[in-house]
Amino acid sequence: MAAQSTGNINAEPPEDSGTADERDTGLDALFSPKSIALIGATDREGSVGLALAKNLGAFPGTLFFINANKPSVCGRAAYPNLASIEESAQVDLAVIATPAARVPATLRECAQAGVKAAIVISAGFREAGSSGAELEQEMLFEAARGGIRILGPNCLGLMSPHASINATFAAGPARPGTLAFISQSGALCTAILDWSLRERVGFSGFVSLGSMSDVGWSDLIRHFSKDPNTHGIVMYMESIDGVAQFIDAALETVPRKPIIAIKVGRTKEAARAAASHTGALTGDDAIIDALLHRAGVIRVDSIEELFDTAELLSKTASAPPKGANLAVLTNAGGPAALATDSLIRSGGRLCQLNESTIQTLNTLLPAHWSHGNPIDILGDADADRYAHSLRTILADPHTNGALVILTPQSMTQSLATAQAIIEIQRAAAKPVLASWMGGENVAAGRELLNAAGIATFDYPDEAARAWMLLWSREARLPLIAEARRVASLPPAPMVEARAALAKHLSGITTLLTESVSKRILQAAGIPTNATVHAGSEEDAAAAATELGFPAVLKLHSQTITHKSDVGGVRLNLENATAVRQAWRAIQSSVPETSFDGVSVQRMFRGPSLELICGFRRDPQYGPVLIFGAGGVLVETLRDTVILLPPLSRMLIMDRIRQTRIFTALKGTRHFREVDLDALADLIIRVGELALAAPEIEELDINPIVFEDGLPLALDARIACRYGLAS
Amino acid sequence: MAAQSTGNINAEPPEDSGTADERDTGLDALFSPKSIALIGATDREGSVGLALAKNLGAFPGTLFFINANKPSVCGRAAYPNLASIEESAQVDLAVIATPAARVPATLRECAQAGVKAAIVISAGFREAGSSGAELEQEMLFEAARGGIRILGPNCLGLMSPHASINATFAAGPARPGTLAFISQSGALCTAILDWSLRERVGFSGFVSLGSMSDVGWSDLIRHFSKDPNTHGIVMYMESIDGVAQFIDAALETVPRKPIIAIKVGRTKEAARAAASHTGALTGDDAIIDALLHRAGVIRVDSIEELFDTAELLSKTASAPPKGANLAVLTNAGGPAALATDSLIRSGGRLCQLNESTIQTLNTLLPAHWSHGNPIDILGDADADRYAHSLRTILADPHTNGALVILTPQSMTQSLATAQAIIEIQRAAAKPVLASWMGGENVAAGRELLNAAGIATFDYPDEAARAWMLLWSREARLPLIAEARRVASLPPAPMVEARAALAKHLSGITTLLTESVSKRILQAAGIPTNATVHAGSEEDAAAAATELGFPAVLKLHSQTITHKSDVGGVRLNLENATAVRQAWRAIQSSVPETSFDGVSVQRMFRGPSLELICGFRRDPQYGPVLIFGAGGVLVETLRDTVILLPPLSRMLIMDRIRQTRIFTALKGTRHFREVDLDALADLIIRVGELALAAPEIEELDINPIVFEDGLPLALDARIACRYGLAS
Repeated sequence: MAAQSTGNINAEPPEDSGTADERDTGLDALFSPKSIALIGATDREGSVGLALAKNLGAFPGTLFFINANKPSVCGRAAYPNLASIEESAQVDLAVIATPAARVPATLRECAQAGVKAAIVISAGFREAGSSGAELEQEMLFEAARGGIRILGPNCLGLMSPHASINATFAAGPARPGTLAFISQSGALCTAILDWSLRERVGFSGFVSLGSMSDVGWSDLIRHFSKDPNTHGIVMYMESIDGVAQFIDAALETVPRKPIIAIKVGRTKEAARAAASHTGALTGDDAIIDALLHRAGVIRVDSIEELFDTAELLSKTASAPPKGANLAVLTNAGGPAALATDSLIRSGGRLCQLNESTIQTLNTLLPAHWSHGNPIDILGDADADRYAHSLRTILADPHTNGALVILTPQSMTQSLATAQAIIEIQRAAAKPVLASWMGGENVAAGRELLNAAGIATFDYPDEAARAWMLLWSREARLPLIAEARRVASLPPAPMVEARAALAKHLSGITTLLTESVSKRILQAAGIPTNATVHAGSEEDAAAAATELGFPAVLKLHSQTITHKSDVGGVRLNLENATAVRQAWRAIQSSVPETSFDGVSVQRMFRGPSLELICGFRRDPQYGPVLIFGAGGVLVETLRDTVILLPPLSRMLIMDRIRQTRIFTALKGTRHFREVDLDALADLIIRVGELALAAPEIEELDINPIVFEDGLPLALDARIACRYGLAS
Repeated sequence: MAAQSTGNINAEPPEDSGTADERDTGLDALFSPKSIALIGATDREGSVGLALAKNLGAFPGTLFFINANKPSVCGRAAYPNLASIEESAQVDLAVIATPAARVPATLRECAQAGVKAAIVISAGFREAGSSGAELEQEMLFEAARGGIRILGPNCLGLMSPHASINATFAAGPARPGTLAFISQSGALCTAILDWSLRERVGFSGFVSLGSMSDVGWSDLIRHFSKDPNTHGIVMYMESIDGVAQFIDAALETVPRKPIIAIKVGRTKEAARAAASHTGALTGDDAIIDALLHRAGVIRVDSIEELFDTAELLSKTASAPPKGANLAVLTNAGGPAALATDSLIRSGGRLCQLNESTIQTLNTLLPAHWSHGNPIDILGDADADRYAHSLRTILADPHTNGALVILTPQSMTQSLATAQAIIEIQRAAAKPVLASWMGGENVAAGRELLNAAGIATFDYPDEAARAWMLLWSREARLPLIAEARRVASLPPAPMVEARAALAKHLSGITTLLTESVSKRILQAAGIPTNATVHAGSEEDAAAAATELGFPAVLKLHSQTITHKSDVGGVRLNLENATAVRQAWRAIQSSVPETSFDGVSVQRMFRGPSLELICGFRRDPQYGPVLIFGAGGVLVETLRDTVILLPPLSRMLIMDRIRQTRIFTALKGTRHFREVDLDALADLIIRVGELALAAPEIEELDINPIVFEDGLPLALDARIACRYGLAS
């Protein structure tokens, strides 16, 4: 069972299965049962049992109503219980609307009757306090024993429109269509259903998750992944149950079907005590962002976007763009300027037309055409001019797709132009988007385009954003494959690092000193500068002489975290005398019990970029890495990204490219180019350490500097779980 | 005349007039003429002249058709020319659709006939090359001589729906309404018109600007500002004509009527040679952003937002929110979570309910209500429960407004709840927004709310964003007043700084050295560290000894801009010997002709935050200041904002609060709090210098550091206009 687990995302490397189709999600009984029993069917006005009885009435398969007290419900014969149904009848799906207290017993009966799946509509479980939680455990026990999958409890139910099933107590039914909608809010289901009927949006499945006691995100994603009626999955999420399984299921699905999600709960962001920079920089919402990105799920911010995006992606699935280069064909400059602006703002670009394309257009078009992209073929463009131009543009190898803009002007042929576009698009292997701007004048043309499956937009700025969405989905596919590949690799053992940890951990140790932390990093294959612990003034002077001047002395303390705050850091010590003075200064600046000597290092002579890399172990999401601009301003700059291990160079580049500091890594006037491979390898090692050493609760490396282009951990801090002894 | 000027925004301090109503924009003849003459009226099928003749047919005032060759047009008597119209008839507005070549002569006739304004539809002027440009000058000359205001040329015309005027060759007419739409794209006008008819959006004015030879943005803004039919102004902009007048007109208008604009042209951003950081960080689009912000204009990114925003703001104008605190009333948790997320993401907050409000709600509501904000009154809430709750919430002094969410559930009373909300809102002085989610089930309630002028949204996330828009408009009003106040102050004379400049400028000087630049800053009242120019090794050693060790030596060169690139900066020189060595090292690292000695400073001992402040003189926008995170990573961090002088502490705080580095200015673990007033004063001085010293083309102060919390310019560079001698 997928639910209940809140393990870290790396707990279970996924099986090496090519497609989701090879797996059985066991949910067929939920979505395409041959027979259904409604337990708790009733005629009582306003009751959930009556609403369900009415909605299920349309089910073309075998339907049984169960009511302990009445011989018939809604004019259909009712059975007192499942056992009383004739032996030959097999019930695949039970829809349960009895009081919560009766649900465990009902499931026991279901198990005896060979029921395969149940939808528990009833409320009064976990959400109703501790006695409800006990009831829920009983229910799950009975279900597990009987091999029954449960949707719910405390849910609206589900609809499977292609099987004519409406097993909800909402109005309905939903229109059959190609989108699967999964929602953690029942009320939202009701509202979306109502809206979908008005807007004529159809569904392959419509699921209210309820409390997710058993069936959760990954089960449903896997189910819809192999469901041929489903072309895209749309989700309203409030929480994620099994994170590893979620990512695994999504990665399997998204190469063939887009998943689009809205995830709420930004405000639940617990105020976490910021013992480390990593802690301060990894809020829940930023992790969710990283997690959905890793899983290939497209996150949107509004309900409107949720369905717009799903519709767009399912419409254009047959001819995805092979690159980001868009050609804009228009009969007016203003709308093309809008499209261009919107394109550039979304990170896209206009393609540079081939010289030969320009030549051909010169022969086809009036002299005043724009002679570039956007291709403005002027206000008097008729359908033929549009057609010739579009054919020429799509033949250009630099063009990955086209946006055709039409504004209603006196010579404009809205309908004929639409017809021409449709024919050309059918023959071309490149996507074409359209914006037929205006109302009545262009309505017929717009309808024709829509009916032909060409994504059509009221405004060209929307169309340009949609183009970037298409392309970014396409551009992500290699990263999806890479994420699956690394997830299938065995974890790095990190034997030396764990041995080093074991040596330095004691039952009461929680915060390791800088020099111990660095020893562990070195054992993990992360380069650090030489750092020597000195227990006396003499040792410090000797160590500094050995390492070379100028030296740095830093307080070595089991209890004081932020050394510089208490004057515990002395830089630029030019000779042994200065080192001895610094020793005494540090010693006198902290309480005796906090003073365990100093660590001695050679002073790093910049200039260097300063980066941060670290991780924090999240109880729900497992280890969460950050990377970005470091140094003392790290929390001010907030120029970091979150990465989820296991990692690879490719996955790392995808993420760290999002930081502003990344541009400086390629060299600036003040800093030489750094070795990005070496940097990526350092980040990989941090991820491996996070996975291999559960003793480590938090790790901050800040700053990472560069020497001859190679990264070097200049300061580090490891915090371990209290009570984990060697 | 407003057009043609591209002067800087400070060229003309605005008159100290309280309201726009006191001014005559001279455009009444355009929008409410008593009589109109169409010059170039014709019966020729497909001609612009015919389309205009037909559209103007609905004009209830006096209408004359002018056609040199025909006695009648469209069944109406035509005159061969204006002079032939009976003497008693006064023509207020001429609509001109003759060939471009005839337009100047036509305007001469107009002037003789006492015409007050003209719409020049004809194309073939500036946009058609140099002969067209000449024609345009002739036209403007005739118009100016006759005191005639001109809209166009090369435009679609205008509509004044409340006066039943459609002086365009588009279809139409537009519906009368409360929005004024001004567009620089004629094609977009056509499409928006078409769309507005479908969506039942009405206009008080509908203007195609064309080439803006005469009537421009500020004229039209001023006109609609005093037009009682106009409640909001909506603009599609490709360029800004007179920047100072634009800001002035907008600042006058926005306290009473919102202005919402979409501005395209992000891609025209010329690749400007980045001689300075300021140059690199002040792209056109960022300036436009700052300019519209300064002017109080709301900039949006899409056509959809343009009208949505306008509709929202005009609907809610009567009861604007007095603070950002929103209460969310709902019958379901999921939609409230969506609203909350969206609110927080837009920078808003949920209000904390008063304890007494909670008590009252406890007595009104079932025990399971959410006991906090969002106020979830549960799925079975009827109209009465909504009404009681809303009344209680609005009475809470902590609440600035409410969003009421309704999802269709079995007990939900969509229509009755809407009625109750409307009554309560009428009595309250606080704004109420609504989201009636779903389709058919809630349609009647939604329509009722809309009809009662309550802004209603399909989804609660949209509603939350709308709330923030309302509040941010309200929150900006004091800044609008401040911008008007500082614009009315006399510019600072900066006598000493100009004298210092004059002393050091020669005809061939373009780049001033660091020490000269700092002397000018000091004269302008900007604190800098002591910096001495040394022409010899001995002088350098003596200066360093005088200023104190450790010292810094920097190359002093008329030709080399980036000193550190060539090894021209030597830090941390501990004694006179080190200074002498550094002198020789710098001297030997650059060509003899580039070496003009060194500047000597005492080494600044950090740590300190490093900031940048500077300006660049833009040919279109005048002086453009930047402020933000400085140091060597300034172009990587891109943590800067643009400010337009003249400035004040209040205007500066509004802008610099947007930088990430701002949080550190209030103190961090590593940096003490800085004196924000002193910092703002430094920025004010930079702005004053920019306005007072047109000789200065660019100024970079980077870094600005802090000593005892006070800002200090540690390095500076001034570039002057070539050829401006003292």
